Amino acid sequence: MKGLFFDGEKAVFKNDLPMPEPLPHESLVCISIAAICNTDREIMRGYKPDFKGVLGHEFVGVVEKSSDPELVGKRVVGELNEGCGECIYCKTGRERHCESRKCIGITQKNGCFAQYMTIATRLLHVIPDSLTDEKAVFTEPLAAALEIPDQIQIRPSEEVCVIGDGRLAFMIAQVLALTGAEVTVLGKHEEKLSRFKSFAKTATDCGRRFEIVIDAAGSPTGIETAMKLVRSKGTIVLKSTYAGNASVNLSQIVVNEVTVLGSRCGPFAPAVRLLSRGLLDLPQIELHELSEWQNAFESRAFKVGFDMRLP
Amino acid sequence: MKGLFFDGEKAVFKNDLPMPEPLPHESLVCISIAAICNTDREIMRGYKPDFKGVLGHEFVGVVEKSSDPELVGKRVVGELNEGCGECIYCKTGRERHCESRKCIGITQKNGCFAQYMTIATRLLHVIPDSLTDEKAVFTEPLAAALEIPDQIQIRPSEEVCVIGDGRLAFMIAQVLALTGAEVTVLGKHEEKLSRFKSFAKTATDCGRRFEIVIDAAGSPTGIETAMKLVRSKGTIVLKSTYAGNASVNLSQIVVNEVTVLGSRCGPFAPAVRLLSRGLLDLPQIELHELSEWQNAFESRAFKVGFDMRLP
Repeated sequence: MKGLFFDGEKAVFKNDLPMPEPLPHESLVCISIAAICNTDREIMRGYKPDFKGVLGHEFVGVVEKSSDPELVGKRVVGELNEGCGECIYCKTGRERHCESRKCIGITQKNGCFAQYMTIATRLLHVIPDSLTDEKAVFTEPLAAALEIPDQIQIRPSEEVCVIGDGRLAFMIAQVLALTGAEVTVLGKHEEKLSRFKSFAKTATDCGRRFEIVIDAAGSPTGIETAMKLVRSKGTIVLKSTYAGNASVNLSQIVVNEVTVLGSRCGPFAPAVRLLSRGLLDLPQIELHELSEWQNAFESRAFKVGFDMRLP
Repeated sequence: MKGLFFDGEKAVFKNDLPMPEPLPHESLVCISIAAICNTDREIMRGYKPDFKGVLGHEFVGVVEKSSDPELVGKRVVGELNEGCGECIYCKTGRERHCESRKCIGITQKNGCFAQYMTIATRLLHVIPDSLTDEKAVFTEPLAAALEIPDQIQIRPSEEVCVIGDGRLAFMIAQVLALTGAEVTVLGKHEEKLSRFKSFAKTATDCGRRFEIVIDAAGSPTGIETAMKLVRSKGTIVLKSTYAGNASVNLSQIVVNEVTVLGSRCGPFAPAVRLLSRGLLDLPQIELHELSEWQNAFESRAFKVGFDMRLP
């Protein structure tokens, strides 16, 4: 089968990858659409030196074989992290943090930039017929945004700031605005910010402070901006991952008693519910053939993916 | 009067400081004992370049004049931060974070390394006769330790790690142990660690992880150790302030969804209650004459202070 394989140093398009065989607890999924996430780019830049395998973790597909016969033929999306089931994390509701977890396209498990993928059946979520593949593929980034209100309370009367005007910020700002909270998006690009105006205030500079600041800027300078924007005893939520360290004034965190909270993958079930209700503004995804993966990775479109249904 | 004055660059002992006059809402306190805090040393190293005035913020004294006549003649300790009463912080229970606050011996307000000091009367706490000056002067550092359980829940069945074997760690570990939680203290000096053994486990190296890790190491490397010790979805509490930035792997905070919480000054009332009950192991404070302040600052004793009752 076709697939985009990362050999530890670079990505290689292959026509002859072996067809994967599902384990007894797994399903075989025929991928319809797979989307590129910034983490895929980071892996190519060296973020996960130990990973070798098929890239990609955002997908929509159809179940071909499954440990749960009722799933066969169903359209599904799937969570990334499969825990061991035995450790303290798996036993305390933190499977996504299991230290020996497999993570599709990232750790110890082939990803979805291929015609077929195997995945633990319990990680799959069936999507309704009314939800198109092109919209359902936003489930994973939307779930990552929903992780924030899963971690901290967002009060409807709260004023929240989101730093960043990219894809992740777009999902986060929408999720936060659905609570009724007033969301201010702080970005660098007026044309990108224009997309946020129907549900948030936008600004390229901001003189006031907020109880909650979300850093979705995607660069190590986001934390500095967040420190300037957050009130004392307030909360900064970090959503971006990137290689390398950042320089942080920890004394300022202590003196101002700020909470800095890391936030990563989130819950799929509420994401599918919100997408199914059509409550989110989802831009068109730009689809490429997998063999043209380099063009896809270089595209500046809002969301880019691969149409695996193409021959 | 005698006092230790910081001129913006260095400390100078003075014999001729003017006697302070309390404002209508203030009290005049005759200082009995004042203790040195690490923050005093940091100010001398340039941590607060804007401050000029009498140093010191840990004290026990006797009220000589007061806006509250009932306080006159009473032995007191006092909180550091006097907010404006008008801003969002003062109006939401965060007076200690008021941006125009005065902070004795630190910001816009003379401190307690002098024979007399003025302070807002509402910041004073009367101490019982049974509590000696030498023990009562531990109120402020004990309050700073109590800020932790004021910010996050410490479950009695929790296992908590404290990094550091210094004064602050000693107060923190005791406060946490009073909850019934199992406390592990990670230090560098076996002889210092021996002081902790009656209420905590001690170690110079640790292979396991904890839900809650308190960084009271007093150096920028504490956060690195804390990141290795904390479980995913766990909490790191930062208690140390120092000049300069630290290099932090923020992606690790995101990926492991760690909460990093700054923690500073704490509540005086519970500190006075615990001290009054004699529930804490308090070492002897080593007292100096104020004129010998340089010896005092150089001493390696556990707790060092000035006996202002000396002529």
